[in-house]
Order: sequence, then structure tokens, then C-alpha cells
Amino acid sequence: MTRQLHLNAFLMSTGHHEASWRLPESDPFANTSVQHYQSLAQIAERGKFDSIFFADSPVLFGDVGRRPAGSLEPTVLLTAIAAATSRIGLIATASTTYNDPFNLARRFASVDHVSGGRAGWNVVTTAGPEAAKNFNLADQPAHAERYDRAAEFLEVAYKLWDSWQDDAAIADKSSGVWALNDRVVPIDHVGRHFQVRGPLNLPRSPQGHPLIVQAGSSEDGKGLAARYAEAVFTAQQTLEDAQDFYRDLKARTAALGRDPDTIKILPGIVPVIGGTVEEALRLEQQLDELIRPEYARLQLARTLRVKPEDLPFDQQLPDDLPDEDEIEGAKSRYTLIVTLARREKLTVRELIGRLGGGRGHRTFSGTPEQVADAIQDWFEADAADGFNIMPAVLPSGLTAFVDEVVPILQRRGLFRTDYTGTTLRDHYGLARPAGRTASLQEATA
Amino acid sequence: MTRQLHLNAFLMSTGHHEASWRLPESDPFANTSVQHYQSLAQIAERGKFDSIFFADSPVLFGDVGRRPAGSLEPTVLLTAIAAATSRIGLIATASTTYNDPFNLARRFASVDHVSGGRAGWNVVTTAGPEAAKNFNLADQPAHAERYDRAAEFLEVAYKLWDSWQDDAAIADKSSGVWALNDRVVPIDHVGRHFQVRGPLNLPRSPQGHPLIVQAGSSEDGKGLAARYAEAVFTAQQTLEDAQDFYRDLKARTAALGRDPDTIKILPGIVPVIGGTVEEALRLEQQLDELIRPEYARLQLARTLRVKPEDLPFDQQLPDDLPDEDEIEGAKSRYTLIVTLARREKLTVRELIGRLGGGRGHRTFSGTPEQVADAIQDWFEADAADGFNIMPAVLPSGLTAFVDEVVPILQRRGLFRTDYTGTTLRDHYGLARPAGRTASLQEATA
Repeated sequence: MTRQLHLNAFLMSTGHHEASWRLPESDPFANTSVQHYQSLAQIAERGKFDSIFFADSPVLFGDVGRRPAGSLEPTVLLTAIAAATSRIGLIATASTTYNDPFNLARRFASVDHVSGGRAGWNVVTTAGPEAAKNFNLADQPAHAERYDRAAEFLEVAYKLWDSWQDDAAIADKSSGVWALNDRVVPIDHVGRHFQVRGPLNLPRSPQGHPLIVQAGSSEDGKGLAARYAEAVFTAQQTLEDAQDFYRDLKARTAALGRDPDTIKILPGIVPVIGGTVEEALRLEQQLDELIRPEYARLQLARTLRVKPEDLPFDQQLPDDLPDEDEIEGAKSRYTLIVTLARREKLTVRELIGRLGGGRGHRTFSGTPEQVADAIQDWFEADAADGFNIMPAVLPSGLTAFVDEVVPILQRRGLFRTDYTGTTLRDHYGLARPAGRTASLQEATA
Repeated sequence: MTRQLHLNAFLMSTGHHEASWRLPESDPFANTSVQHYQSLAQIAERGKFDSIFFADSPVLFGDVGRRPAGSLEPTVLLTAIAAATSRIGLIATASTTYNDPFNLARRFASVDHVSGGRAGWNVVTTAGPEAAKNFNLADQPAHAERYDRAAEFLEVAYKLWDSWQDDAAIADKSSGVWALNDRVVPIDHVGRHFQVRGPLNLPRSPQGHPLIVQAGSSEDGKGLAARYAEAVFTAQQTLEDAQDFYRDLKARTAALGRDPDTIKILPGIVPVIGGTVEEALRLEQQLDELIRPEYARLQLARTLRVKPEDLPFDQQLPDDLPDEDEIEGAKSRYTLIVTLARREKLTVRELIGRLGGGRGHRTFSGTPEQVADAIQDWFEADAADGFNIMPAVLPSGLTAFVDEVVPILQRRGLFRTDYTGTTLRDHYGLARPAGRTASLQEATA
């Protein structure tokens, strides 16, 4: 069988284009509507997507005037969606900087139980001083410190998920023994950031561990991904950059003794689909015209750590921006934006248009055939194992992709026509992690 | 209309009797089965209960041999149940000692959004050194310190829940303004335990605040309840004790300037229901005979802070137990158990039988009429505003209560025959808290 594509639907209120909520079709309160998200997940499941995904940060971003703001806590949202779907994987973002490993490991294991093995966790370290101020801190911990904590956080989580053997509970009613004590053991973790006794207060979940996803592309981010990630979401603007990233991350993964096929790399794409090229471009232009540039410039200035007035709309970015090294926030996003602007010599206004659609992700406008071609090209050129589909408008952009692009990919033999497994790991072709095995000297009831 | 009873169903795996899982009818893996809990909630909703409730602690308790151990994280579980029900209130326990206010306030607000205004939070401070060891601590913070943190935690949560005005989002598509900036403001909380900037990253929820529930009966616990709680779960063995507690808590509430009718007091009751008294007693005895006394004694010894061998099965409790003042864990539970044992001169074996059913809550075995009488007597004697129903066996004990006891209470005019409102606050007859109101000088778009 041909190597198979993986598709993730990255869902965000009325769509990834910041002005999408202003379209007549959009529900401007979709950001807190569980029915909206249940319906989107059902559309993606109809399209046999591997998974859906939610970004998140424990802070209210930017300006509530600009676009629908605030969102349901993602593990709560995934659980509500689990009840309305049966096969599609469910990936939520959660921060290792602003959570405790015991609580978060339990929450993802709970979602895995409730969904029958469909949970995934996008591990983020949460950039920016704003979030820190919601958690007793004056500023964010340094980039390297956040990643050091993230690695230890994951080690603790793995130990907790494996603190129960799969066969710990024997439920012997006649003898009155529910589980065997030596199969549920403390983890006694003592590290630089965490001391956690364990065991977890929840039996091992259907997938053993939820799928681990990572989306940072800085040096630290790639290091974390190579060691732990099973799927990686990344923003790549050109085929060459995507190939470099793909090759680099697979090599880093192999260098750590992991099979590079156990890490799936999914660049983001914002497909704007029309019956003709002109129709697609018209939709894109319609959206860009709805952007309020003063809001967008405020956001851009924040990312670039400059003042809004230093970014005149009709000039290119100033020459004296800080180096990535000086950025303690979202390093790789910073570099991507600056590189894109300089490479294409974009004015601030043009850059805002490009970012309005995908915040640094690749926007592609065209017919369903052209979108399918764009996906196939990168997939076959070793730039991607699949794609993070980021519809500019929801639900219409997702519906168009599922009804018009997916059948083309299926006809070309690149994408499943039905699910063959039941868990998120099944969909991505990843094995269930073995847990601890029974001690040689079995305990008896 | 006659004053109306409130009924909460306290759900716990196969039932509150520790040996319930050993009955032939019981699913011994019910503790991680979302279908089990969805079905229980549907039964309680058929019985027009105000709410269901889950206890919780971020630690694996005791001995996994003894009974089904480990449980789904409660806000995840409530969300799954929300999808399978439409009216019943959904109350989960979460710890103020081992959570951050920003994350937890958002999670409960999310459950409130997802459920259409049915979320309640049982605020606990989490007794015991075991939980502390899962959160970087060698031992639990002192009792008074935990309650001091709990009070500030609640103050932060209220501020976050009110950080968005109800009318903040205007969603004006034509001007491109989604929300008015002066209606979503930072909370800038600076206190002894927390510094939280806010605002919350979620618009105000249907109930404004989730219902606040409290279940500690120590001095500190009653102080916290009088100030903040809207419903109180309590363990009371005798009518006199229950009346004293009721009178005391209502007076404390009034002394703080709150209408005492805005705090609903619900003692726990473990009803064991039979067609005849003999049948009920036979069921109770059958359950008690399934207790493995060595497990139960281990648990009792842990609560009393003595060694198991200091508790011979056929003797009463030793005389030299510590005072409640010396207990930094669950003070009121400690006192209740010691008082019960001394008052009724119970041997350790007899005490274990009494605790096996309800862990200190009142067990009542009888016919449906007798159970209804027991409830009505306390209700009309100013000992209760309602009851926390703790079936010894689930689902059968809940089904029996709903099908046999509820109709009697309805015929007597004491309990609703249908829901009259849609939110948890509606069911308990509690007003939606007013949020912040618009500033006098309205911002304009």
C-alpha cells in the first residue's frame, strides 16, 4: 500500500482567519459553543481525519475587540466532543509551565478513558509574560528553563501513566481482592522541578499514554520533539524550509535511538478553496478586507517586541529587530514572521494580510484539485507525513475540504477511505506503549 | 407551597458500601466507566434530583486490594455526563490546596458553559500527607493554613468569574468590534497566597458562578461554609447533632450578613431499601459480611493515626486517642467516628460495620415508607434542607430510591414532580450572582 497521509483538523472558533467571525455565515459566539465544536468534529470524522486539535494558553490574549476571545478549557471541550463522536482522535494543548504533572497526567488519562483511547496532548511551555502573571509570577521563566521543566514534566507523566500495570485489577469478587498491590506502585520521582510520590489515582488508560504532540520549532522545541513527540505540528512557508525541518527532525529523532517513523510531521496549511482559482482568491481577498489593520498591527508589534508606531503600514519591517536569541517567548514564530517579511519584501500591511489567514502558517488558495496537489507535492517530496488543516472559515472551510479535497486524496490512494483502528495511536500508525510488566514472582491473592 | 426538599445523589463506583463491588450484580470496573456514570445520572434525573456529586482527592487512597480504586478526573467526568443529561446539576470536588485558581476557575466555568449552567464545585482543602507528596511537598500544609488559602482561592475565583461583564461581547460584525475593552478587565489580585492578573480567558458562564458547595464540618470548615457555601454536605448520625449543626451554620451565615436561606444544608444518608424491614436488614447484613475486616481496620487506623494492632477487633477504641486539635487532616470526620464509637460503645468490628456503609454517614435500612419518613422527620425538624443520598449499592440502590422513595416524597408535597428551571441554581432556589455592571460612562464602539 502507498504510504498514507495523516490529516489533523486544527479547530478555532469561526476559523483561522482573524476576520472570519465578521462573515454573514459565522456565529460570533462559536468560541464558547460546544455544539459548534461537536459539529466540526463530526464533519472531520466524516472526512476520516486522524484527529482534531485545539491550541490553548492560560491567558486572555490581546484585544477582545479584535476577534472572538476566550475559549473553553480544552480537556473539558475534548470530553464533550468525545461524547458526540466515536473514532476521531482528540488532541488538546496544555502547558507544562503552568500545570502540575499529577493533575494534568490524570486529566489526559481520564480523557483517554472516556473517549476509548482517543486522547492526545500537545505539550507547550507557554510563551510570554502575560500568562506568568496569572500564576504568581512577574515574568515567564526563561526559554531554556521552561523546556527543562517540560522534559521533566513528561518524565513524571510517563511514570504516572505506567504506575498501574495493565493487569493490576483482577476484581476477584470471591476472595474480595480488587487489585494486586505489587502491580500499583509509587513512582517516587525526585527531580529538579518535581517531587511526586504517585501512583496515579487512575488505572492505566486504553492507549497506555495519550499521544504526545509538540509544536515548537526552536532549537529547544526540536530537541523536546525529537525525544518525546509522536506528532509534530509546524509552520513552514516554503517547500525547502519544510524539507529542511523534516530532515532535521527525523535525523534528531534517529540520533536519540528512536525509529524516525514514530514521529509524524504535519506542517500547517490554510486552504482557501473555491470552484475556480478566481473564486478562491476572491474569498481570500474578502477576508483580508475585513481585517482591522490597527488591531493586527498591535498583535504584530507585540510579537516583534516593538512599538506599534514603529511599524508604518506601508513600509517594510525595521532593520533593527532583536535576534531570536534575545526572544524569550515564541522564538520560532518570531523568526518565521521576520523571515517571511524579509524574503518577500512585504510591507507591514501586506504582512498583516498574510498573517491574518494563518498567523505564519502557509495559506494556499485554489481549487480542490490544486489543494490536493499542494498536499501531495509536499508529502511526496519528504516535507511532510501529513498536514495540519487550518480552515480559514469554520465550518464552511472544513466542509469544503472534507467534501471536495478528501475524495481526491482518497482516489489517489493517499488517504484512508475508512478508519481501520479505534484509537488515536491506531490512526497515526503508532504502537501502544508497553507498560511495566508483572514481577517475575507473581503476587497471589 | 410547602417548603421543598433538595436531593443530591452522591455517586461512587458500585456504591458507598465498601463491599458493594463484590455483589454478583456489580460491575467491578464501574469506577472508570463513563457509561456507568452517565446511566446513574440519567436515573437521578428521572427522579428529578437537584444534582449529582463526586468526591475526589488528588491521590490514590489506601489499599487497591480493598475495593475499586482510582477514578476519572471529576470535571472530565461531569462533562461526559453533561452530554448524556439535560437538567440535573453536576457537582465535582476539587482541591484549593493542589490547584491554581486561574486553571480551576476556568475549568468550572467551562463545565458551566458546556452544561448550560449546571456546574457546581465542592471546595475541599484535601486532608492528609499522602496528597501533599504528589505535589512537591513532604507533608500537608497545616489545617488553618489550608483554609486560609481556600478563602483567598475563592476570592480570586469570584474575581475571575466576574472579570467579564455579562454584556461584554457585542459581536458587531459591521464595525468589526467583537467585545468592548472596558467590560473585560484585569483583576490584579495581590494576596498572601496568590498574585493573579486576569482577566479570565473565558466569557462569563451561564450561572455567573458555579454553585459553591462545602463539606467540611470542622471549625475552619464551618467558617468557610458560612462565608461562601451555597450548599453544604455533612455527616450527622443523630437528629440532635444534625439540628445543632443546622442551627449553628445558619446562625454563622446570618452573622456574616447573608440570608440563611441562601445556604442549603444536606446531611448524608445511606438508605438501604427493602420491600420489608427484614429484607432491608438482610441486604445490609449481606454487605457487611462481605467486608474484609483487615482492610477496613487498616483504613480506620490511618484515620485515627494509630497502628492497626492497637485496634483489636473485639475491643472498643483505646482511651488515649489524640484530641481533634492535634489532627491536621480531616478533623471533623475524626471526631465523628470517635464520638460514634464511644457513644454506642462499639467494638472495632462493629464500628467497621457501621463505617463500611457510609464512612461516618447515617445508614438507614427500611421500607420505602420508612426511608421517606426518616427524610421527612429531619427535614421538618430543622435538621436539613435536603439530603445527600448515598446509595450503598449502585445502580440498584439509586433505582430503588428513585422508583420507590421519590414518589412518596412527591405525594407528600415535599419534592418537585418536575424541574421548574434549567440551571443548578434554579433547582436549589438560588439567585444568579450579579456580575460587574457596565461603567456609567459607556464605551462606544
